[in-house]
Order: sequence, then structure tokens, then C-alpha cells
Amino acid sequence: MALRAGPAYNSPVPQTRQVKLASRPVGLPTRDNWDFGVADTPALADGQVLVEIHYVSLDPAMRGWMNDQRSYIRPVRLGEVMRAGTVGKVVESKHASLRVGDYVVGNQGVQTHAVASGDDVHKVDPDIAPLERYLGTLGMPGMTAYFGLLDVGEPKAEETVVVSGAAGAVGSVVGQIAKLKGCRVVGIAGGEAKCAYLTDQLGFDAAIDYKAETVRKRLRDTCPDRIDVYFDNVGGDILDDCLAALNMRARVVLCGAISQYNATEPVRGPANYLSLLVNRARMEGVIVFDYADRYHQAAAEMAGWIAEGKLHSREHVVEGLDRFPETLNMLFSGGNFGKLVLKVA
Amino acid sequence: MALRAGPAYNSPVPQTRQVKLASRPVGLPTRDNWDFGVADTPALADGQVLVEIHYVSLDPAMRGWMNDQRSYIRPVRLGEVMRAGTVGKVVESKHASLRVGDYVVGNQGVQTHAVASGDDVHKVDPDIAPLERYLGTLGMPGMTAYFGLLDVGEPKAEETVVVSGAAGAVGSVVGQIAKLKGCRVVGIAGGEAKCAYLTDQLGFDAAIDYKAETVRKRLRDTCPDRIDVYFDNVGGDILDDCLAALNMRARVVLCGAISQYNATEPVRGPANYLSLLVNRARMEGVIVFDYADRYHQAAAEMAGWIAEGKLHSREHVVEGLDRFPETLNMLFSGGNFGKLVLKVA
Repeated sequence: MALRAGPAYNSPVPQTRQVKLASRPVGLPTRDNWDFGVADTPALADGQVLVEIHYVSLDPAMRGWMNDQRSYIRPVRLGEVMRAGTVGKVVESKHASLRVGDYVVGNQGVQTHAVASGDDVHKVDPDIAPLERYLGTLGMPGMTAYFGLLDVGEPKAEETVVVSGAAGAVGSVVGQIAKLKGCRVVGIAGGEAKCAYLTDQLGFDAAIDYKAETVRKRLRDTCPDRIDVYFDNVGGDILDDCLAALNMRARVVLCGAISQYNATEPVRGPANYLSLLVNRARMEGVIVFDYADRYHQAAAEMAGWIAEGKLHSREHVVEGLDRFPETLNMLFSGGNFGKLVLKVA
Repeated sequence: MALRAGPAYNSPVPQTRQVKLASRPVGLPTRDNWDFGVADTPALADGQVLVEIHYVSLDPAMRGWMNDQRSYIRPVRLGEVMRAGTVGKVVESKHASLRVGDYVVGNQGVQTHAVASGDDVHKVDPDIAPLERYLGTLGMPGMTAYFGLLDVGEPKAEETVVVSGAAGAVGSVVGQIAKLKGCRVVGIAGGEAKCAYLTDQLGFDAAIDYKAETVRKRLRDTCPDRIDVYFDNVGGDILDDCLAALNMRARVVLCGAISQYNATEPVRGPANYLSLLVNRARMEGVIVFDYADRYHQAAAEMAGWIAEGKLHSREHVVEGLDRFPETLNMLFSGGNFGKLVLKVA
């Protein structure tokens, strides 16, 4: 379907270009699973704002939302605008404390404009950090890293922390916070460039290139005292390799399983799960929404680290709403390097 | 090898009949994996006692000790007397506080007599409970149930607790303690007799016969509020079925995986492990030895419950040291009904 040149900002009925879920994918999503369209935005009711979306967040979790199955959040319905985190500018307001020109983050979905309750979006300051960072280190991925590592992983100084998807939006923050807490940190990522980034730019003690190296062997080399905290973003073989290398009373933080999200066969369970028994270790899931009442605390601490130059971020920006389908799939091939966002305005 | 009629109790050098590990099994152990022999017992040194063993404990964990692999305890060596919990009578003593005629529990292995340090055995009272119960409810299985359920599972009143291997030495105690704590309790066991025992004798709210019923469906029927604590003794399909039925913030206590112990292929990991993520649940291993400094507390509380008629036990006694191999294997077929012990004296 052809896309219009753009919404008519000045028309009395602003329009939004949208990406809707057309069908549920089997395996890796294809372009056919998406519907591109244009819709009028409704008139604002009291308390609402119209947001011009600048960046859409692309996250591995989106793949799960496309499935019709019980999860921590309801599935996206067929025909519904795809759920996504967003950051954008208020272009109309009937909300008492939001003005035209304010920048806000929220969950406005994969579209160019959205009407939202002003209470459901949060003001951000583009002078503190580039807008897209509010979808990464200062957004849900950063919060996930912070609470997943600190509250579920409970790392102590001198312990060994291993993180997979280590160059990604969550993993890179996990590793850097673990370093700030005095841990030995090993990252697992795909490719030389990402591994060099971890050790040279982010201060990781070691990096393992899972595309070129034998992870199990390299874990032995890089974790002589075994693993105290494993933060898992990937599942599959790497989870099994890390389970085999756990230390006594280790904590495995389950954050994601990107290797399994497009599996057309049943998910492969971790064959080495009995390492949890032998080592009196635990494996526990983290869902960031549970920590909503402490986001402000984490954001303040992380903004401080950024200001002090102790926490680095990298975003991977792709332009154009129409490139949403193939850009999302970069997450599953490891094609992105840093927090992946789509620039739509 | 033929067995002698018995040890010569009155000879100056007492002898012991022993079962030693002859070779490491592949899959289910066979008689060929065991060596039967007779040995002189060494003369007592100061602080030692000679124990005439009455009952040998048969536990699923023994299968793991036969493998040459890193675990929570070193493997049994080839040619070594098989490790086992035991209860017996002191027949000679050079220990200050143990006398001939005292009954003691310890880890004297699969044999008829053993020389032990008096500090490594613990006196028990045959008037409080039958001797074999000190290997079950009042022994390691009971301690495992107590600490695994209460310390790792952390059940709260009104919560739903599910236990597999529910008619076994650990599972039956888990379920009864959970009832004492005010929980709804569902047991999974094999066969009508065991299931009737759980509901009619032990007060479980429901029982699921995994040999005759579809566990996943029956979990839906019997756990309308889903599962808050799952105490896993079996692994395999039943673990997966329970993972699929977890409630938010559920706790899975990993105590064993008897369905996998004789697997000749790699252990099958739990395909539904991502339920831990979706439900912010945790899975954690328990090894009873970690709680040694609190055994006395648990034993006192459990003895109280037994005296009040609130905690019931059932032992399955098989006679004869030479029947050790096939008796051990009853654990893997579910052929035992209650705590399995071998009567050797």
C-alpha cells in the first residue's frame, strides 16, 4: 500500500501513518504480517495531548506481543497499531501540565502521531540527553537492566557477572552497572566490533564473540571463579553454557530469550537446568513494569552516571516508518549495534 | 559372587558384607554395576565405634553419586562401598559418649557393619519412632522437605502448593507441612493407591495420577488459582506442565529430577522455562546439607507434629543386602510406596 507523503499537520483533522498487525507470524515476521495505513486522529478530549512521534523503540519483546498467548501483557490484536515505546513532541494539548513543544515518552505505538492521555506520557528534557536515549539507557531497556541486575541479580563487589546480548540496549547497561558495583564483567556478543566496543569503550573485563568462539570454553578462560550472576537476554545454547559454569548460590536473571522468539518448534529448555540444584542457584524472571514506582530513582541515578561519563550509550537509528518490518528483524539477526530505534519524524 | 552366611559377630575381627560400585552405569543401573564382597572391619581407634547396620536408606540421589561428574558431593569411586544413609546399633565403642546398644544414624554405606568416628553419627531413640523412620521423615528426606518447602518455597497460607513424587519420602512430608501451614495442596503420584493415600490419609486437597491422567489438564481443574509453589522431585514433562500453570511470583523448588537420572541422552530441559520470566517466578535448588546447623530445630518440630498425629509416615522395607540392586531401581519405576529402606540386620 502506498504511503502518503505525510500527515497534514495543519489540517483540522490531523492524520497519522500507522503500522498495524495484519496477521500473526509463524517464525520470523515478514512484511505480510504488517498493514500500513493512514488514519485520522480523533479530536482531543480534556486531559489529552496530540503527540508527533519522533522515534519508535524497537525491542525484542515486541515479537512476543505478536503471539496470541498468555503473557505478562495482552497480545496485540489483529488490526491494532503495533505496540511500541515512543518519544515525541506535544503538538496539541488539553492537559493542564503539558504544553505544545514539550517532549514526552510513552507507549504510542508504531505510528507518526497519536492522541494520548497526558497522564500516560512523561515529559523528558532533550537538553539532558538526545531524544532517542529516552527509549534506551534512560528508558525501558535501561530500567530493565538496572532493576534486573540490582534487584534480581543482587551482584556483590568482586563477583563475576556475565551478560549476553551484551552490546544491546539492555546488556550494555547491565555490564556497565556491574562494573560500577565492583564486579568482574564478561559480555557475550556477536562479532569483533561489538566485542571490542565492550572491552575498549565500556570497560568490560572480557568479551566473548559467540559467532566466532566456543562460548563454553571461553567462559572457563574468562571466569576462573565461575559465574555468580548471569543476565540472560538470549536463551538457547548460551544459557546452557552459562548454567554449566555457575558458581554456588549463583543468580540467573531471565530477561529474554531472543534466540527462541522466532522458533517454529517448541522452545528448547535449558538442558543444564539441574546446575541450579547442584549449585543451590536460582533462576528468576524480571519484568520491568513491576518497578514502575522506582523508575524515577533509577533514572536519576543513571542520569548522574551519564553526566559523570561513567555510563555510555549507543543508539542505532534507522529512518522511515515504512522500514519498520525489516528494521525490527535486525534484532533477531544481531544486525543492530546499540539500542535500535526508528526515526519517524 | 556367593555371599557368606553372615558376619562373625564374636570373632576378634568382625567382618562386614559390602556392596561396592563396580562400574558406572549407562542408563538404569544393572546388577553388573555392583560388586558384593566381605571385608574385615578395622580395629577401633580412639573415638570410633563399630556400628551394626540395621537399615540402609535408598534415595534417588544415589543415582547421581554413581556418575563421574561435578556435583554437590564427590562421586562414589569405583571399588568404594556405595554411599548411603544408615541406622544401626553400636556394638563396640571407643567413643566417650556412645555406648554399646545405642542406636545411631549416619552415612555408613551399603554394608552390614562399619567403623565410624563417633562424632560422625548421631544417637536416635527407637522408642520415639521406629528405627527406619530416622532415614525418612526424621532423616534426610524429612529435612529436605522441611527446608526445601519452608526456606526455598516460602509458602504462605491460602497459597496453592503442588508437589510431585508426592507419595515418596520427601514429597509426602512436603505436602503435609504445606497443609499444616494452611496451603491448598495438590500431589502428583503414580497410581490409584498412592493418590488415595494422599487425599485419604495425608489430607491433601487433591491428587493427580500421572500414570492415568493428563497432568496439565488436571492441574487446571485442581489449581483454579494456579500454582504458587511447585516442589519438583521429578523433572521432565511434569515440570513443564507445572511451569505452564505458575501463578505470578511463584517459586519452583528444584529438589530432584528422577525422570531424568537414567537418561542416556542429554537431560531434557524444561521447555516452558520462560514461564519464569512471564510470571516473575523463580526456580531454585535445595541441597539439604546446607541446613545442617538447623537440623535439630526441624527434627524437634517434626517430632512434635508426629506426636500430635499431624505428620504421617510410611516406609517400604525390603529385606536383604543382596537385594540392593533391584531395590534401588524400584525408585525409578515408582515401585516403592513410602520411604524405601533395605533391612540388612
